[in-house]
Amino acid sequence: MADSLAELRAKINAFVHERDWDQFHSPKNLAMAMIVEAAELVEHFQWDTLEESRELTPEKREQVSHELADTFVYLLRIAEVLELDLIAAANTKIALNAQKYPVNKAKGSNAKYTKYQENE
Amino acid sequence: MADSLAELRAKINAFVHERDWDQFHSPKNLAMAMIVEAAELVEHFQWDTLEESRELTPEKREQVSHELADTFVYLLRIAEVLELDLIAAANTKIALNAQKYPVNKAKGSNAKYTKYQENE
Amino acid sequence: MADSLAELRAKINAFVHERDWDQFHSPKNLAMAMIVEAAELVEHFQWDTLEESRELTPEKREQVSHELADTFVYLLRIAEVLELDLIAAANTKIALNAQKYPVNKAKGSNAKYTKYQENE
Amino acid sequence: MADSLAELRAKINAFVHERDWDQFHSPKNLAMAMIVEAAELVEHFQWDTLEESRELTPEKREQVSHELADTFVYLLRIAEVLELDLIAAANTKIALNAQKYPVNKAKGSNAKYTKYQENE
Repeated sequence: MADSLAELRAKINAFVHERDWDQFHSPKNLAMAMIVEAAELVEHFQWDTLEESRELTPEKREQVSHELADTFVYLLRIAEVLELDLIAAANTKIALNAQKYPVNKAKGSNAKYTKYQENE
Repeated sequence: MADSLAELRAKINAFVHERDWDQFHSPKNLAMAMIVEAAELVEHFQWDTLEESRELTPEKREQVSHELADTFVYLLRIAEVLELDLIAAANTKIALNAQKYPVNKAKGSNAKYTKYQENE
Repeated sequence: MADSLAELRAKINAFVHERDWDQFHSPKNLAMAMIVEAAELVEHFQWDTLEESRELTPEKREQVSHELADTFVYLLRIAEVLELDLIAAANTKIALNAQKYPVNKAKGSNAKYTKYQENE
Repeated sequence: MADSLAELRAKINAFVHERDWDQFHSPKNLAMAMIVEAAELVEHFQWDTLEESRELTPEKREQVSHELADTFVYLLRIAEVLELDLIAAANTKIALNAQKYPVNKAKGSNAKYTKYQENE
């Protein structure tokens, strides 16, 4: 069992190396594989109301868990082959988002940040 | 700075709560938001050859890093609202994948596992 | 102005040839480009309720129209480079769907067809 | 057999009405369904080289044809529920693209149009 992000990343790398799959794992291919998994998640919710999507049967919850895991695995692989630190990248992006979506303007609003700039 | 997955998750939750965005974060909406970010990643590679996708300019590398971060943030939010443990989900799924893709059959092959089953 | 599907297809082909873009239009690349456009459509609706997505402002309606057009253009290009007839393909697939989703079982239900088969 | 876009659209509408599925066909839900189909197309090409994606086995060609058809059907449904004319939308968008990608700048280049603007 991998207990941390670093251990999980190492485990996935080993899985890939054992199967000699590095040759297929260009960023282009991995980005395609990741969006396919993201779409399998979307499929679970496509006919749900917003409320229904919050209340999953145990069976659907398990399937959703698998799709999230698959998306996560490919995300980690892309970070790996591009030698990017996902945690650092997320910290950086959240700081940028905090500027784009200041609390006083964004609170309770689902508008895209470009809407605030139009109105300035 | 969040240094671990748990810290990052807490930081993102705080970001969302401050903006009163929990109301928009149904799994259905979050799955849509995540695939939009995954597509922004795909866009960076859509006209690249496989080789070109491995060699990014510093500018493109930074943009790709932002798209990965955005995808990661929404992945963490979906796990949060569904109360799923992403690391545990990944461990479970990797164990399933190891059964679907045994090393002796999958080595060096990019075929889908259903292909092995057809041939059994 | 192209007035029919055939004229539109010819117009798009001419657009691509003039720019010498056929070299980039492998099915793999075009499938990526199409999903990027489909995601731009998804983005317009990601925070909407189901009801809100039915009632668009004129500005949003125009943007949605552009995303649909872009998706359509890439769909036509993929059909072109693979020499597939989209209308014929749709006729064939609708006939298959009619078998998978018989009216007596599917009426008023949003379940996937595999659900009917489980219960047989 | 539907022979034209208008006939196909009418046929799909009848299919949906018979099953009482209009209730599920909000633009939000349909956009999700369409991207899921677009991703099933992407999946067929995710591990292919660009060259491999141009040369399909008859079996894969048929599967690809089904995914294109499914994407097309949802595209037509979205246009239907939003009362948009796809052919007109495509004509409009191609005219805009012709301005964004003038032949003298875009010829043989896979750069995004924003690149030309930067260099002006």
